[in-house]
Amino acid sequence: MKLWEKNVRKVEPYVAGEQPDNKDMVKLNTNECPYPPSPKVKQVIKKIEENTDRLRLYPDKTMAPLINALAEFYGVESDMVFAGVGSDDVIANCFLTFFNSEKPILFPEITYSFYPVWADLYKIPYKTPKLREDFTIDVNDYMGENGGIIIPNPNAPTSIYESLEGIEKIVKANPASVVIIDEAYIDFGGESAIPLVKKYDNLLVVQTFSKSRSMAGMRIGYAIGSGELIAALNNVKNSINSYTLNYVSILAGEAAVKDKEYFDATRNKIIETRKRSMMELEKLGFTFPQSKANFIFATHKDYNITDMFNYLRDNNIYVRHWNNPLIKDYLRITIGTDEEMNRLFDEIKKYMNSK
Amino acid sequence: MKLWEKNVRKVEPYVAGEQPDNKDMVKLNTNECPYPPSPKVKQVIKKIEENTDRLRLYPDKTMAPLINALAEFYGVESDMVFAGVGSDDVIANCFLTFFNSEKPILFPEITYSFYPVWADLYKIPYKTPKLREDFTIDVNDYMGENGGIIIPNPNAPTSIYESLEGIEKIVKANPASVVIIDEAYIDFGGESAIPLVKKYDNLLVVQTFSKSRSMAGMRIGYAIGSGELIAALNNVKNSINSYTLNYVSILAGEAAVKDKEYFDATRNKIIETRKRSMMELEKLGFTFPQSKANFIFATHKDYNITDMFNYLRDNNIYVRHWNNPLIKDYLRITIGTDEEMNRLFDEIKKYMNSK
Repeated sequence: MKLWEKNVRKVEPYVAGEQPDNKDMVKLNTNECPYPPSPKVKQVIKKIEENTDRLRLYPDKTMAPLINALAEFYGVESDMVFAGVGSDDVIANCFLTFFNSEKPILFPEITYSFYPVWADLYKIPYKTPKLREDFTIDVNDYMGENGGIIIPNPNAPTSIYESLEGIEKIVKANPASVVIIDEAYIDFGGESAIPLVKKYDNLLVVQTFSKSRSMAGMRIGYAIGSGELIAALNNVKNSINSYTLNYVSILAGEAAVKDKEYFDATRNKIIETRKRSMMELEKLGFTFPQSKANFIFATHKDYNITDMFNYLRDNNIYVRHWNNPLIKDYLRITIGTDEEMNRLFDEIKKYMNSK
Repeated sequence: MKLWEKNVRKVEPYVAGEQPDNKDMVKLNTNECPYPPSPKVKQVIKKIEENTDRLRLYPDKTMAPLINALAEFYGVESDMVFAGVGSDDVIANCFLTFFNSEKPILFPEITYSFYPVWADLYKIPYKTPKLREDFTIDVNDYMGENGGIIIPNPNAPTSIYESLEGIEKIVKANPASVVIIDEAYIDFGGESAIPLVKKYDNLLVVQTFSKSRSMAGMRIGYAIGSGELIAALNNVKNSINSYTLNYVSILAGEAAVKDKEYFDATRNKIIETRKRSMMELEKLGFTFPQSKANFIFATHKDYNITDMFNYLRDNNIYVRHWNNPLIKDYLRITIGTDEEMNRLFDEIKKYMNSK
């Protein structure tokens, strides 16, 4: 061991889904959108290309074009909006800002696997209430003493949406805690908690451009909450990095938010494909919770899921699978285009016939 | 006070230089480069514009195109290079990763004012050795027990370059500490410590695209050090955010690094203008340390500097000034184009004539 190593922070990092780049692969493993960003994004990038001289200057540290567009879209004031380098950056900042209690924070036992990583990194104690047998959340588990709460809605990887009544019950019962609702997948059929931020100053709602807005490559996430929450978050953010979103992200993000028509068309296409995909999977004998996300969390009583996952992977179809014993019998399948889903179903049929 | 506020991290954030956007202003206040990025950057953005579909996918989390280009440029292995969202993001990650001792870290009393902010944020104790009367660093101040060291070379805002012998002495004397040399301004005449990373596994050198590579708007910084240091840094980074640099930054950064000819032409132009500017300022009666950065740290025995700063600002010329009593009699003047410097000198002359 090197002498300097004793002062190094030891962490077990989050492991993101693999990002293969094979020709003709069907990539249904990291919940990206199968459709391109709004054509308005293309126009903005063209303008930037015509004036790259602007890149020599720092970006607007208030990120005003993006912040104002989001405020207008969601009908809130600009001082109620925060933005960061993807929702992971936003949530990491939230953990550092809001979860400084000695009491444990709460999040579901089965959920986004980055939560325990952030908690460990910042030395935040945590407890993980179990889900019910059917993978739903029991809101009563979030009523006791705690140092903060974070729940994804819809939850990942289960795809299950918790009603806004359930969410409100949690927020209302915890006035001494910041409650974060991670709505990465809300645009695929759920009802957002954003309107509740005007009623509860302890509620923060986090969303992302990586899923419903087709811009995972641009790294944009945001949070909406009371002015006090956003001010505290900005103070911490400005103590780490004054300028996070670059010039291109700020303007491309603004353009995407302003194109509501394209956004609605895209998410509706995914909702349609999801509906058809659930029917197809059902025909093939899979069972799964009713998904309100852009993925389906499916299992099959007659087949070894790990084996099926490997078969699909060998045939250039990438879905997500975890070795975690609680969910090892499940595949998380991102909703792709109809063509991509057909290729998936064909390969699954081939797999089944080969058994 | 809200009930949830007791668990909020309280911080005094860093205050970045103002970013005015006035017509015809002369912006010499945040050490940006007056020349546009390499034309190769324009070409890359054009290619991205032609294929915005790619933006729907996550970027390469290894940032391989950029990391490999930097490794080649500096003659090191790829596993010796780390990249982040500007050097502020890189250094914030370094504080969190490497400075976990109970002993205080060391950095100069007059230096980049973000260092104490990061230390406070992460609750790291620190001591700040005074500079000598002439603003130079005394390397002997960095020989005692400590929890880590960070020194900018050239230092900011003093513009003074410390010899590589002095830097090596510090690194060698501190095998139990990680020593970070923040080389944001190294390309304007100093000799980088990067070749020393092969000799000292406790040395990390941080640089940025915001100054000599004309890309403050793209937010790209990097660190070069031993494979062990970079692995530890990547572990922490991957515990915060798997994907930091977006698709555009990775490719634009790669293109800029590969255009060495343009990079050399740009920094040489700035070095030339700096030489002429130092002569002009001297004629006007200013005194200043010999600058090896893209700015000059100047004072004048006959004029009130705060007053001069305000006059310049009122006349649309932005330079940087601090109220810190140690440096309140100094202006930090970024090297702009020759035309911009002429406008500055003209306004200074007008100011002097008006007194």
